[in-house]
Amino acid sequence: MKIGVVAPSCPLKREAADKVAALAAARGLELLFHPQCFLEAGHFAGSDEERLAALREVMADGSIETVWFARGGYGSNRIAQDAVKDLPEAALLKTIVGYSDGGFLLAALHKAGARVAHGPMVQDVLRDGGEAAVVRVLDWLGKGLADGLEPNLAGPAFAFNLVVLSSLMGTDLEPDFEGAELLIEEVDEELYRIDRFLFHVTSQSGFARVRQLRLGRCLLKENDRPFGAELEEVVRFWCHRAGVRYGGRADIGHDSLNRIVPFPSCNGPASLS
Amino acid sequence: MKIGVVAPSCPLKREAADKVAALAAARGLELLFHPQCFLEAGHFAGSDEERLAALREVMADGSIETVWFARGGYGSNRIAQDAVKDLPEAALLKTIVGYSDGGFLLAALHKAGARVAHGPMVQDVLRDGGEAAVVRVLDWLGKGLADGLEPNLAGPAFAFNLVVLSSLMGTDLEPDFEGAELLIEEVDEELYRIDRFLFHVTSQSGFARVRQLRLGRCLLKENDRPFGAELEEVVRFWCHRAGVRYGGRADIGHDSLNRIVPFPSCNGPASLS
Repeated sequence: MKIGVVAPSCPLKREAADKVAALAAARGLELLFHPQCFLEAGHFAGSDEERLAALREVMADGSIETVWFARGGYGSNRIAQDAVKDLPEAALLKTIVGYSDGGFLLAALHKAGARVAHGPMVQDVLRDGGEAAVVRVLDWLGKGLADGLEPNLAGPAFAFNLVVLSSLMGTDLEPDFEGAELLIEEVDEELYRIDRFLFHVTSQSGFARVRQLRLGRCLLKENDRPFGAELEEVVRFWCHRAGVRYGGRADIGHDSLNRIVPFPSCNGPASLS
Repeated sequence: MKIGVVAPSCPLKREAADKVAALAAARGLELLFHPQCFLEAGHFAGSDEERLAALREVMADGSIETVWFARGGYGSNRIAQDAVKDLPEAALLKTIVGYSDGGFLLAALHKAGARVAHGPMVQDVLRDGGEAAVVRVLDWLGKGLADGLEPNLAGPAFAFNLVVLSSLMGTDLEPDFEGAELLIEEVDEELYRIDRFLFHVTSQSGFARVRQLRLGRCLLKENDRPFGAELEEVVRFWCHRAGVRYGGRADIGHDSLNRIVPFPSCNGPASLS
C-alpha cells in the first residue's frame, strides 16, 4: 500500500518523517512524503497555493491509496474549500486520515464524498509513546486492525477538536450531524474558553441534529481563577441546554492514546473494502 | 440621571467602583451599583441566576435611565437569551453601555429593540489613563458630548470584540448586519487565532451583508513563530475573500482610548433624545 503524506497546516519535522517511514517499511507499507511537507512559509508548511497544490496532487494520484496528514497546527481551513473543488474520481477511492487542525479538511472532504477518518498523524510519533499512535494508524490501514478504533463507536460518528468544530460551524464545511455521534477533544485552552466554544457549537441549529455528544480528553490550560465547575459538568450543561444527549467520555485527544474515528461513509481503510 | 451598574460577566473591583462613583458625582450623575457587581461564584460575578436577576431588575426599573456594565471577562453569553425574554417596556427607554464580553448582551438587547452602545465600562478606570475612558461615557450620557464617539462613523454601525463576534455568529444573538459597518477589536490572542476567527466570521452568510469592516486595535499575544503576514493584511485577505469592503482602522480597543459606537437604533443617550 502506498500512503501519501502532505502537510495542509504546519511543517513536518524530518525526524518524525524518518521514524514513521521506518515503522511503515517494517509493515510493508510505502510512505511517500510530498516535498511540501518540509516547506516553511511563516506559520505554514508553504503558502496556501503550495499546500493546496500538494494536497490536490496526492488526492488525484491513482497510485496512492491513502492520504495521511503530516500534522496539525493551523492553516488547513485556508485551503479546504478549494481542495474539494472538482475533486477527481480517484480521490473518492482513498482513505484520508488526520485530526486537530486537519478537521477542517476532514469535514470538507467528507462533504465531497471522500472516505475520511479522525486519527493520529505522522508527527505524533514524537510524543511520549507516540510510536503506538502512528502504528495504530498503520495497522488499521495495512491490516484492517480494529484495535485502533475508538472502542465505543455505535453508528455514524464524527470527531473534532472543539475549536476547529467551533470554527467550521455555519460555514460550508459544517457536516450534517443528523443521527450521528459527535466526539470532541481539546488542548491548550482554559475552561472558560471551552465553555464559550461549547456555547457557540451547541447554540447552532445544526448541533440539534446530533444524536449524542461524547467528550474526549481536554488538556486544559489553567484558568486564572477556579472556574466553578468541572469540565464534564460544563459539557453536560451545554448538552442539556441544547437538548442533546451527553454520552460520556471518548478515547480521543491530543496525545498518543488518540484513537481512530472513521466518519460516516468510511467503513474501513480503502484498500481493504 | 441615574445610572445602574450590573456585572453580567466577572466581578467588579471596589476600588474601580469608588473612583467612578466620584467622577459621576462630580458631574451630577448618580451611579447605583447593584450589590451583584461584587459577588463571586467561580469565574463569574455570581451564579447565572444571580447575574440574570440583577440585570433584569435594573432593566425593569423605570427610575434608571442607563444600564452600564461593570466590566467584561467572560459569562454574559450564558444569560443573554434569558435576559431579553419578555423585556419590560421600561427597558426599551434606557441606554445600555458596555463592550468586550458584554457584546453578547449588546447583541441580544439590540435585537430585542433596546438602545445599546459599545463603550468603556466601569472597571476601565483602573487602566493607564482609564479616567478618560469612563469620563468619555459619563459625558456622553450626561451632556450628550459627541467627542467620545468613534470619529469616523457614517451610517449604522456595530462594534464587537472579534472572539465574542465569532462566538455569537449563527446563534440567536447574531445581528442583522445589512448595510452596516462592523468594527472589530481584539486582545490577548495570537495572530494565527485572529486568522481563524476571521475565517469563521467572514465565512458566515450573515457577514456578506456587512457594508464595510473596520479594524480597531488588536493587542496581540506573540505567535510562537512569525505568522508571515501583518494583522491588517490578514484582515484585508478575509474581507476580500468574503467580498466585503475593508474600510481601514477604527478607534476602539481594549484600552483607555476605546471610543463609543452606538448601535443602530441608538441615536444618542436615552435621557437626551
